[in-house]
Amino acid sequence: MDGLSLIKAASAIGAGLAMIAGIGAGIGQGYAAGKGAEAVGKQPEAQGDIVRTMLLGAAVAETTGIYGLVIALILLFANPLFG
Amino acid sequence: MDGLSLIKAASAIGAGLAMIAGIGAGIGQGYAAGKGAEAVGKQPEAQGDIVRTMLLGAAVAETTGIYGLVIALILLFANPLFG
Amino acid sequence: MDGLSLIKAASAIGAGLAMIAGIGAGIGQGYAAGKGAEAVGKQPEAQGDIVRTMLLGAAVAETTGIYGLVIALILLFANPLFG
Repeated sequence: MDGLSLIKAASAIGAGLAMIAGIGAGIGQGYAAGKGAEAVGKQPEAQGDIVRTMLLGAAVAETTGIYGLVIALILLFANPLFG
Repeated sequence: MDGLSLIKAASAIGAGLAMIAGIGAGIGQGYAAGKGAEAVGKQPEAQGDIVRTMLLGAAVAETTGIYGLVIALILLFANPLFG
Repeated sequence: MDGLSLIKAASAIGAGLAMIAGIGAGIGQGYAAGKGAEAVGKQPEAQGDIVRTMLLGAAVAETTGIYGLVIALILLFANPLFG
């Protein structure tokens, strides 16, 4: 077995591990969705402001999931360890 | 054992690990569904607005689970590490 | 198999593990988004102050996710263990 194959194998596992970060965004954004739906039920006239705030906060919560995706894509398609 | 077999074995593990991200969307969207149902029970006349907000937020919460699925599919069907 | 390949393989796994830190920021920021949406629904006239406070807190919650990203990038692009 050559060294490059070992590095590639580990990169496949690393890419999968990096995606686990997405757990956080899923929980957090779902909480925001629930609170947003609750708020709209109480103040339907403020729906626009509520949804805008919910989506702005959810976009921030998405970032660490995106970081994990970026690292996974680097490991798969632009891996600097193969040099 | 040849190197390609090791890379393929690790890719199988990586694909499985990537799917763990789905934990988050499951919890978050379930919370949103619960809060949405609660809100509809309190203000049935606002059902349309509540459900729209809930589904919009749940769609956002789905994204990181989709990212994990995409990485798993790449590892299985379009694996760049086999080169 | 040479030692450098083993170090590179372990670095790929380490980079993936570091991204798991993002779970925390995702949950926390999503909670902030939900509470922010709730508060805007109750006091729409205070939306500017609510959103500013939410984003300030979310920025602080982002830091540990950034730490994980920095370590992952160091492992991939500026790894001091290869010497």
